[in-house]
Amino acid sequence: MEPKTYAQAGVDVIKAEAFVTRLKRLSKRADHQQLWPAAGGYAAVYPVDERTAMALTTDGVGTKLLLALELKQLSTIGIDLVAMCANDLICVGARPVAFLDYYAVGKLVDEDADQVMQGIVEGCDQAALLLVGGETAEMPDLYKGGHFDMAGFAVGLVSREKLITGERIKKGQQVVGIASSGIHSNGLSLASKLVGTDKRLKEQLLQPTLIYTKPVNEILDKKPQAITGLSHITGGGWRNMLRLSKTAGYRLANPLPVPEIFEHLGRTVEKDEMYKTFNMGMGLTVITDGDDDMIVKTFSEYGFTAKVVGEVTDSRGELVIDGVGALGGAINLKE
Amino acid sequence: MEPKTYAQAGVDVIKAEAFVTRLKRLSKRADHQQLWPAAGGYAAVYPVDERTAMALTTDGVGTKLLLALELKQLSTIGIDLVAMCANDLICVGARPVAFLDYYAVGKLVDEDADQVMQGIVEGCDQAALLLVGGETAEMPDLYKGGHFDMAGFAVGLVSREKLITGERIKKGQQVVGIASSGIHSNGLSLASKLVGTDKRLKEQLLQPTLIYTKPVNEILDKKPQAITGLSHITGGGWRNMLRLSKTAGYRLANPLPVPEIFEHLGRTVEKDEMYKTFNMGMGLTVITDGDDDMIVKTFSEYGFTAKVVGEVTDSRGELVIDGVGALGGAINLKE
Repeated sequence: MEPKTYAQAGVDVIKAEAFVTRLKRLSKRADHQQLWPAAGGYAAVYPVDERTAMALTTDGVGTKLLLALELKQLSTIGIDLVAMCANDLICVGARPVAFLDYYAVGKLVDEDADQVMQGIVEGCDQAALLLVGGETAEMPDLYKGGHFDMAGFAVGLVSREKLITGERIKKGQQVVGIASSGIHSNGLSLASKLVGTDKRLKEQLLQPTLIYTKPVNEILDKKPQAITGLSHITGGGWRNMLRLSKTAGYRLANPLPVPEIFEHLGRTVEKDEMYKTFNMGMGLTVITDGDDDMIVKTFSEYGFTAKVVGEVTDSRGELVIDGVGALGGAINLKE
Repeated sequence: MEPKTYAQAGVDVIKAEAFVTRLKRLSKRADHQQLWPAAGGYAAVYPVDERTAMALTTDGVGTKLLLALELKQLSTIGIDLVAMCANDLICVGARPVAFLDYYAVGKLVDEDADQVMQGIVEGCDQAALLLVGGETAEMPDLYKGGHFDMAGFAVGLVSREKLITGERIKKGQQVVGIASSGIHSNGLSLASKLVGTDKRLKEQLLQPTLIYTKPVNEILDKKPQAITGLSHITGGGWRNMLRLSKTAGYRLANPLPVPEIFEHLGRTVEKDEMYKTFNMGMGLTVITDGDDDMIVKTFSEYGFTAKVVGEVTDSRGELVIDGVGALGGAINLKE
């Protein structure tokens, strides 16, 4: 049977969320009062002194790496790994500075490993991150054949002034949408099954995740308060925006065009499920109080497609997309 | 055939080192001049300002997790994960502050995941680390059955004053050895094969890695310059000490007793190979210029077995152990 939802594709988001909730309880949340509160839980913000904090995040690329293995195209999966981490860091206002990778293989195959690392190095260049370390593990009994897994760890620095807490998000502010390159690194378990054996579509799925750090760095350097909220669109799709503020809702009256790949995926999947699983052509949203022109211009100068796609409402927790409807329910897959 | 070396057990250290060398070339070492140089490459030290830096490291537990799965004892493998990272951070003089985990499973089994996380939380308590985040990935097509992998990322803070560079290591200084709890988290691929089906020995192998951070924090708080070198004994065994200084050698005339488990493992493995693969009962060495009494006392107060085991020599790159002989050749598995 062809899967019609993310859960049917073997990824149980509800169960994963329940686990994360139990974990939070276990890890003594009281201690977390020493962290600076930041919007969306995209990164933990640990103070170094009164003015400066480290932003910390970790991520993987999920089953996108199985697709890369299947297509024998390993040179860009490292870009995805860096992207998933770097794009999370900017969501709290941090400037990404350093990256480390964990790379575990069944058997170290020189050509494969070199390709993977080439992608990581390229991703770090794109993100203006310094690759400062990593761990390479050879585990013949855990990973079969040429299989491998990888995790990334990125660190940024953020000043009090630039920290994005979500508290400045208010009704009437503009939502700038930045285009994705395609599916990026979320929803691949479902998407891979949906495209079947179509090699052209599979190659489209493998398109590397865009890295948005440089324009965001520049915007915050120009004007530290220009951004009131930033949402990296990952697992959970556009509902990621609802992570940013406890009071805001969003109305997207003028969304970016939906790329062809999602039309294919949407043939057998409900529209609602599509928007809750995939980025649907928008990899990042930037919320601003009047600096939308500068933000669109800066992203455009770096080669990104960007435009005002909607505005903030006071319909708490509600995301309304013209032509799609209302998507409720916040989602947070991060611990 | 029973493996007699680490390479025969499927772990090709030479190949892994060659890969790391290529990687270093790829990642533009010139950029790394902005890092503070620290002893042994145990952690990357990235400056926040002129006085303070972040220390960053990542590690896994290797095939110890397969043993944990086999014995259905998952509650301590998280301690090993934290230990591998936290013990690396202290080697550059850093105080470990925050930890993140990457946890990838074939299928999220609540009881297993809770046990794994319980170990991570316990490890963070032992290390005085705050668990600030993580990523949980469900990848049914990558990991079979209840299999999983995990990676840890730890961050510390270090002042210029406390930074351990290895440059203060000089002939005649004392080497304090701190006992391990057993095999810790290195050499398990070989050890698991050597113990065969003996359940008692397998359980000994699973003993969690000791976490040495609290006494080291206290020693450096009392006297920031008390330690001239610190070596976490991981893959590569006692030769890890040779990572610390380009001029020093070591003579260990009075080593700690070798625990029973290593006697068993050593029945079919050459002594030289044993000392190059396992910790042989010593999980950490601390080099000091005259503060050996204070260091032994502090570790003892925290319940660790510690004593002066030898001294620094000027036989560059040479490690001589009474009753064993000379072990040459520096090893550095970190990127």
